[in-house]
Amino acid sequence: MTDANRQILLKKRPVGAPADDDFESGEGRLRSPSRGEVLLKNLYLSIDPAIRGWMSDAKSYLPPIAIGEPIRSGTLSQIVESNAEGWFTGQIVQGLAAWESFSTVPVSNLHGKVNMIEGIPLHAMLSVLGGTGLTAYFGLLEVGRPRDGETVLVSAAAGGVGSIVGQIARIKGCRAVGLTGSDDKCSWLTDALGYDAAINYKTADLRIALKEACPQGIDVFFDSVGGEILNTALTRLNRRGRVALCGAMSQINADERPPGPDNYLQLLVKSARMEGFTTLDFAGRYDEARAVLARWIREGRLKYRDDIVDGLENAPSHLLRLFTGEHRGKLMVKLADPEV
Amino acid sequence: MTDANRQILLKKRPVGAPADDDFESGEGRLRSPSRGEVLLKNLYLSIDPAIRGWMSDAKSYLPPIAIGEPIRSGTLSQIVESNAEGWFTGQIVQGLAAWESFSTVPVSNLHGKVNMIEGIPLHAMLSVLGGTGLTAYFGLLEVGRPRDGETVLVSAAAGGVGSIVGQIARIKGCRAVGLTGSDDKCSWLTDALGYDAAINYKTADLRIALKEACPQGIDVFFDSVGGEILNTALTRLNRRGRVALCGAMSQINADERPPGPDNYLQLLVKSARMEGFTTLDFAGRYDEARAVLARWIREGRLKYRDDIVDGLENAPSHLLRLFTGEHRGKLMVKLADPEV
Repeated sequence: MTDANRQILLKKRPVGAPADDDFESGEGRLRSPSRGEVLLKNLYLSIDPAIRGWMSDAKSYLPPIAIGEPIRSGTLSQIVESNAEGWFTGQIVQGLAAWESFSTVPVSNLHGKVNMIEGIPLHAMLSVLGGTGLTAYFGLLEVGRPRDGETVLVSAAAGGVGSIVGQIARIKGCRAVGLTGSDDKCSWLTDALGYDAAINYKTADLRIALKEACPQGIDVFFDSVGGEILNTALTRLNRRGRVALCGAMSQINADERPPGPDNYLQLLVKSARMEGFTTLDFAGRYDEARAVLARWIREGRLKYRDDIVDGLENAPSHLLRLFTGEHRGKLMVKLADPEV
Repeated sequence: MTDANRQILLKKRPVGAPADDDFESGEGRLRSPSRGEVLLKNLYLSIDPAIRGWMSDAKSYLPPIAIGEPIRSGTLSQIVESNAEGWFTGQIVQGLAAWESFSTVPVSNLHGKVNMIEGIPLHAMLSVLGGTGLTAYFGLLEVGRPRDGETVLVSAAAGGVGSIVGQIARIKGCRAVGLTGSDDKCSWLTDALGYDAAINYKTADLRIALKEACPQGIDVFFDSVGGEILNTALTRLNRRGRVALCGAMSQINADERPPGPDNYLQLLVKSARMEGFTTLDFAGRYDEARAVLARWIREGRLKYRDDIVDGLENAPSHLLRLFTGEHRGKLMVKLADPEV
């Protein structure tokens, strides 16, 4: 092991969509863990919309990334040195660390030890069995609370989270309708993932398309997009409908605050609910959710797709793909294999 | 009893705030109740913001009032003829009827028989023990779900509903903060009703005033106003905060749809919830709520104020007072005393 630590740093805060020159390579020094900390070797980086939020200086559930600091990121990592009770060298963990070869973090940043599951590859622990799957699971089941026979609409449906949400909705006996940005991805949703219907929001008249695809109205809208998609979906919401707010991809690169959903009074007219969440709200239940998701995978009822590139230097360009909508499934960057 | 039935009809749909010439007097004929209906003598009319909504042709939980029809209204009424099992002549009922001396309605429009409570006047059955009190009770306790020690912000706090919400919040051990439109009404809230603080939103810098009045942030916002008040309150909402949407007085007279709350992503950042409701969502629990409210009144912990005018012809001008904000407590119109 060397003392050098390759990093990707935040050079400046993005204006609009992130660009290559918002990042710069750097080299830090390893820091031995203080009491309650561990030193991690990062194996996979999770490429998520949340990173774009942390790059800006808006107030959020976590402070902004400071200029000159490595980009904060979910990771799949291996403990190489521990100074915390109950955590041991060699353990694979999922955590909140950064775009760098090694990270020293407090154990409160760890989402628990990753137990390998037979027949499921390590990187899936960062996607369908990691934050992505947990977001889909808790957001749909605990915030959306779909009931058998209801209609569940999902935006960003071909993304990491959305591709799982629709399948869970189907498992729960719901009609699953997906919104995505190309006909190819629409076909993928219906043919490969079992969505009942898919709408290309870039070419469709959304109002009409929603009416056709959701003839019984929308009971649950799992929304990661916001903007006009949310505003239009509100008009098709059923009485006692629920909007699970997972994100706002349509607004994430905006420099000025975009308008709010002027149809929000549909919530009043329909005794409906709009509720934000993060997986942290359900931190005590990750193992339960992982066990259920793994069972569905083994039973062949839940499919997932991980879109992986190799090498820390490719992290910025992989993040940019989030905003062009070219990807399917979960984006991640591979840095290293675990040591056995 | 005569065959004639004095009525106030919808002459045309209001543009902006309702005006005198949106209404006209009329005379209808009494209709004997068909099977499942009752003929009501209306004793008190309930003057509520919802009436303004029904006067427009926007889609809502009830269809618009048709032009030429009497104005739909909550009422306190006495059954003068029944053609429905379990309903008898002489019973006092709370129901959904209209601005007219007599109404023939299906029993599904009745909110149950009114049982007089010793020491509480009949008209209170239409206010604190009627829809107004039920709206405050269920909206705060079931949608807002305040916990001991939390901060509850109430808009339109001197109105019929708001004046009760703050008192229930205090009974539940919360800090109650009210928003209203004059210093006089602010004093009434704190001195007579026990609100911990009150803000005159017309003269205060709302952002600063909320910070001062809610130093621990807002856990529950009971909102009947919407617009910039809602948008600003969202920025002070605590993690896992709740917005109980009761109405949108600031928007009710708008001809074009006002902008939505552009701070709605605070719901995401804070894992917070915004939820609409009507008392109809809790129709099976009215008796339970009335019993609790009556007990609080008897114990001297819940005060109410009814602002009553006499005579059907005064109903339109009394409705207009809702929008000028001059009133305190619940507006109603007295038409007749019950026959004993």
